[in-house]
Amino acid sequence: MNQPILYFMTKIIDPYGSELVEDYAKVIKEFGLDSFSVKKFPKPNKLMRRGVVFAGRDLEIVSKCIKEKKPFYVLSGIMPTNDKIHFGTKMVVENIRYFQEQGAETYILIADLEAAAARGVSLEEGRKRAMDFHIPAYLALGLDPKKTIFYFQSDNKAVMHMAYEFSKKITLNEFRAIYGVADPGRIMSAVTQVGDVLFPQLKERMPGIIPVGIDQDPHIRLARDVVKRSKDKKFFPVSSLYHKYTPSLDGRVKMSKSRPESCIELPEDPKQVCKKIMRAKTGGRDTTEEQRKKGGQPEKCMIFEFYKQHLIEDDKELQNIYDRCKKGELLCGEDKQLCCKKMTAFLKDFEEKVKQNKKKVDKLHFIQFK
Amino acid sequence: MNQPILYFMTKIIDPYGSELVEDYAKVIKEFGLDSFSVKKFPKPNKLMRRGVVFAGRDLEIVSKCIKEKKPFYVLSGIMPTNDKIHFGTKMVVENIRYFQEQGAETYILIADLEAAAARGVSLEEGRKRAMDFHIPAYLALGLDPKKTIFYFQSDNKAVMHMAYEFSKKITLNEFRAIYGVADPGRIMSAVTQVGDVLFPQLKERMPGIIPVGIDQDPHIRLARDVVKRSKDKKFFPVSSLYHKYTPSLDGRVKMSKSRPESCIELPEDPKQVCKKIMRAKTGGRDTTEEQRKKGGQPEKCMIFEFYKQHLIEDDKELQNIYDRCKKGELLCGEDKQLCCKKMTAFLKDFEEKVKQNKKKVDKLHFIQFK
Repeated sequence: MNQPILYFMTKIIDPYGSELVEDYAKVIKEFGLDSFSVKKFPKPNKLMRRGVVFAGRDLEIVSKCIKEKKPFYVLSGIMPTNDKIHFGTKMVVENIRYFQEQGAETYILIADLEAAAARGVSLEEGRKRAMDFHIPAYLALGLDPKKTIFYFQSDNKAVMHMAYEFSKKITLNEFRAIYGVADPGRIMSAVTQVGDVLFPQLKERMPGIIPVGIDQDPHIRLARDVVKRSKDKKFFPVSSLYHKYTPSLDGRVKMSKSRPESCIELPEDPKQVCKKIMRAKTGGRDTTEEQRKKGGQPEKCMIFEFYKQHLIEDDKELQNIYDRCKKGELLCGEDKQLCCKKMTAFLKDFEEKVKQNKKKVDKLHFIQFK
Repeated sequence: MNQPILYFMTKIIDPYGSELVEDYAKVIKEFGLDSFSVKKFPKPNKLMRRGVVFAGRDLEIVSKCIKEKKPFYVLSGIMPTNDKIHFGTKMVVENIRYFQEQGAETYILIADLEAAAARGVSLEEGRKRAMDFHIPAYLALGLDPKKTIFYFQSDNKAVMHMAYEFSKKITLNEFRAIYGVADPGRIMSAVTQVGDVLFPQLKERMPGIIPVGIDQDPHIRLARDVVKRSKDKKFFPVSSLYHKYTPSLDGRVKMSKSRPESCIELPEDPKQVCKKIMRAKTGGRDTTEEQRKKGGQPEKCMIFEFYKQHLIEDDKELQNIYDRCKKGELLCGEDKQLCCKKMTAFLKDFEEKVKQNKKKVDKLHFIQFK
């Protein structure tokens, strides 16, 4: 939802269809997560089918809600700090969309208080950025405007009241055990976020699922701890769904704008993006000859990773590229051209849709608070 | 405003008119306070004239505002936890009233969020208790209903936004240096309180004074630190005014309801109160004979302390009692009867006024928030 707290280097990304790599398996074990089982979710999206979504907490409960058509919600937050989003956010939206299509009440909150306090973006500016870009971007990525409920954190007194209340339910040591660190600013962000996460249940106690990057697990644990600690059982412990990181184009770390040469943002000029793609790390061999003979290594290729996570919807098409690479038929130059073409189409389509959706923001369902 | 953080034992209470006892002098020195100078404040109230008000921060600024008729504010908070207040609160109200009469804009906030989170009093219940008792009690103790502005913390989004913002301006170590301890609940209370303290300045930057018991100084220091740290200079650092404690009737510690036999609350049944007064520690001698000869010791007498702090407005009357005690004319039995009579009158008057003022609460000036 906001600052990532834990960092896991994603040096190796598991190939399409393969089992989890050691790093993610370790995360599941260490943090006591549920492995994601694609069989338990009807019509899984590509992230689920391809192992990009790899774990969660209390996934069984949500699976049951979907199958038995029982009420549940999906929630996420927008930090309206600048006019860009990253590919990690795109995955979150894809997962929100999945649960929305499976019947979840959908909540998107704009974390304007956090943006103001942590990044100096005034509430007015944060609101403007959300309306002009972030919300249209989420719609562009596939959320149904008619089925999504929005609110601004700064408008939501109930969330602030919960944050106040929850602050009394945790000790500094417990906070530190979850987050590794503790300071007043982080504590305020975290307890407010727990308020946001549980807010939909003020109306009705029900399961909810929060799709996030694995770095956000501390927030989920805090929310679940607070719920467990409440004697009144007013809230249902939230479930979560974790996806792996999008790696940087050089394959070294998580994609991050702090390393712009290895990062693609949304939106970004397609020409500039193509230049970056041309320099991306692939699974190619030292010589063309060698690659024709031995085949490429899509498991190590950032281009393939981008196809898998973001650019190719159709599994057969992805499999075909995988096979052609493995056989040495598809060489890296051609593949990068293809990636560039697909990426350009995606970026243009995204910008066009953001523009169209910007016109619709006034008609969206914003919660009106007294 | 709410939980006392620091405790200073008030074993010895300085006598009427005398200089500060060592303990309070030490507090002034250790915490870098200004000594309260009665000459700098026009028409000082009895607490000021008698050295019960003994220190503050940036008192000169407020003195100047009064003399030059410049705008300033006085602010205090009500914790609507139960249907009693203590005599320390009575002193706070007396000092608020003083500044109100000297032209200060007067703000009283109801800390219903704190009452809910820390003491489990629901917001509805807190609101009811404030309207039924605490606000009428403050009016009964002399606040001008026409000149006092009230708000409920839970209604005030601006305060919650400030709390969020301020949480990012302090580190855990700074917090610990001020409060001695740090945990999420305390941090939330403290930063919210800073929001309350500075709230009147959102409209106009101006000096403000917060009259409190000396145990509340950490909150004042935090507010002043936050102000100093703000680059935008949006706020003026608040001043504060400190009064000494009302001692327990046995003279051993600060009066506290945790020791009910030594504590008087408002309201309380006068008969019961008189029984407690009869058992109070005085400055009497071992025998009547000795007391007639040597005189009593009003400096050590809790009855005299009660006269000084609470029951006798007229300085001459107080002086007369002091002199008669010193000369051995006024013996403890007679004095306790007198105290009981004055206390009964006060308690009955208080209850009557609370009743009358309860009818007026609907007409008070509550800030209406959007």
